[in-house]
Amino acid sequence: MITAVALEGLPEIEAGFDLAAAIARHPSFQPPQPGDILVVAHKAVSKAEGRVRDLAEVNPGERAFALGTATGKDPRHVQVILDESREVVRASRGVLITETRHGFVCANAGVDASNVPGDEAVVLLPLDPDASARRIRSTIRQLTGTAPGIVITDSFGRAWRSGQCDVAIGCAGLKPAEDLRGTSDSQGRELKATLIAVADELAAAADLTRTKSGREPVVLIRGAGRHVTAEDGPGAVALIRDPAQDLFR
Amino acid sequence: MITAVALEGLPEIEAGFDLAAAIARHPSFQPPQPGDILVVAHKAVSKAEGRVRDLAEVNPGERAFALGTATGKDPRHVQVILDESREVVRASRGVLITETRHGFVCANAGVDASNVPGDEAVVLLPLDPDASARRIRSTIRQLTGTAPGIVITDSFGRAWRSGQCDVAIGCAGLKPAEDLRGTSDSQGRELKATLIAVADELAAAADLTRTKSGREPVVLIRGAGRHVTAEDGPGAVALIRDPAQDLFR
Repeated sequence: MITAVALEGLPEIEAGFDLAAAIARHPSFQPPQPGDILVVAHKAVSKAEGRVRDLAEVNPGERAFALGTATGKDPRHVQVILDESREVVRASRGVLITETRHGFVCANAGVDASNVPGDEAVVLLPLDPDASARRIRSTIRQLTGTAPGIVITDSFGRAWRSGQCDVAIGCAGLKPAEDLRGTSDSQGRELKATLIAVADELAAAADLTRTKSGREPVVLIRGAGRHVTAEDGPGAVALIRDPAQDLFR
Repeated sequence: MITAVALEGLPEIEAGFDLAAAIARHPSFQPPQPGDILVVAHKAVSKAEGRVRDLAEVNPGERAFALGTATGKDPRHVQVILDESREVVRASRGVLITETRHGFVCANAGVDASNVPGDEAVVLLPLDPDASARRIRSTIRQLTGTAPGIVITDSFGRAWRSGQCDVAIGCAGLKPAEDLRGTSDSQGRELKATLIAVADELAAAADLTRTKSGREPVVLIRGAGRHVTAEDGPGAVALIRDPAQDLFR
């Protein structure tokens, strides 16, 4: 059995906030159990790390203006997206899909613009979400003596399917995928789905648990401890498909 | 809080098996609670519905031979995939991605080939997975007096990310997506991720709960009742992105 519970009552997160310490002492996490997994929406991590830009201070270049016209987006927002990207994958009315500097293919390089007039702050993805996950894990280990698995998430759209699902953009202390190649099912047949993106399924399960309008960036998942590892492991970058083998770029 | 538990001890499923009745009387589901959601791996549904073909009886056509050569797949398997497809989206060594007759874009049209020599049965997707979900729901309602939400799943690969995640290919009694457009977060800002693919997140959470090598096609999810509806609703076809607006076909 798996249980997932959102950690209630975390404060609004600002730069410098010690998210790991707040998690470590949260009553829903006390006492920590071996195999615990904490799933954290990146926005909380990004804000704590100061990964925020003010559009009022952004000077869009020529390409940002052109893509702004093509997509109908604020050229300053586009400039920030380009600053966070290696490559533009698709640009179309209302849609700008890029490959981020980490290698994730997603809308707007994960840059989250406020739509409220007068508030021009945009939140970026963490610079290195796997490193962020390792830092959170390390602090929680220091404070509690237990090292949970950590997943950092964002909501990504998908090719072919409408809507967004949360996926892992960073992780630590967790096998991001479970490799079932060579294992058999109950009938002794080789299994079809051979590499399960466990970190993404954890992200999705956590998102299901949150009240969307609330302040619940952190979800504790119990019962999935077989995916938790002593070492920090390869991180969520391991879930990026090799571009050379990607038929949809 | 959300809990997910796999229903243990279901028998190996054969054509004609009454899966809904087996779920209805399963001790983990008794007593049913309002807001319960049952997530069922399609393979169990497909087998119960007799959606199985024997490759020994398949005569591949010219196109199946050509695509078999291009992809390295058994031309008889390719013929079955073509029979289940509207269109080939990508064909490459080891990879055949098609649009199924339902409109899903996935590997091998969801046709699951056994790799065991001598066993040449392949399992197809249900003919109409939303209708399958409605039937299961209706039978459970008759037997228990409670109408749970039903999700039927398959493991799909994704563009840009390695590994598979379970997604919804059928559902009933459930809002497949939660539309947050126009709602605000705790700061009064308009939310970025505006359409959450709830049925897919339920599918992912259920997959996390299963022991992969076991016989656990059915997972009961409790605590997500706000997504359950009295009416059967639009089904998982509502999650298919309009091909005209799909930039990755």
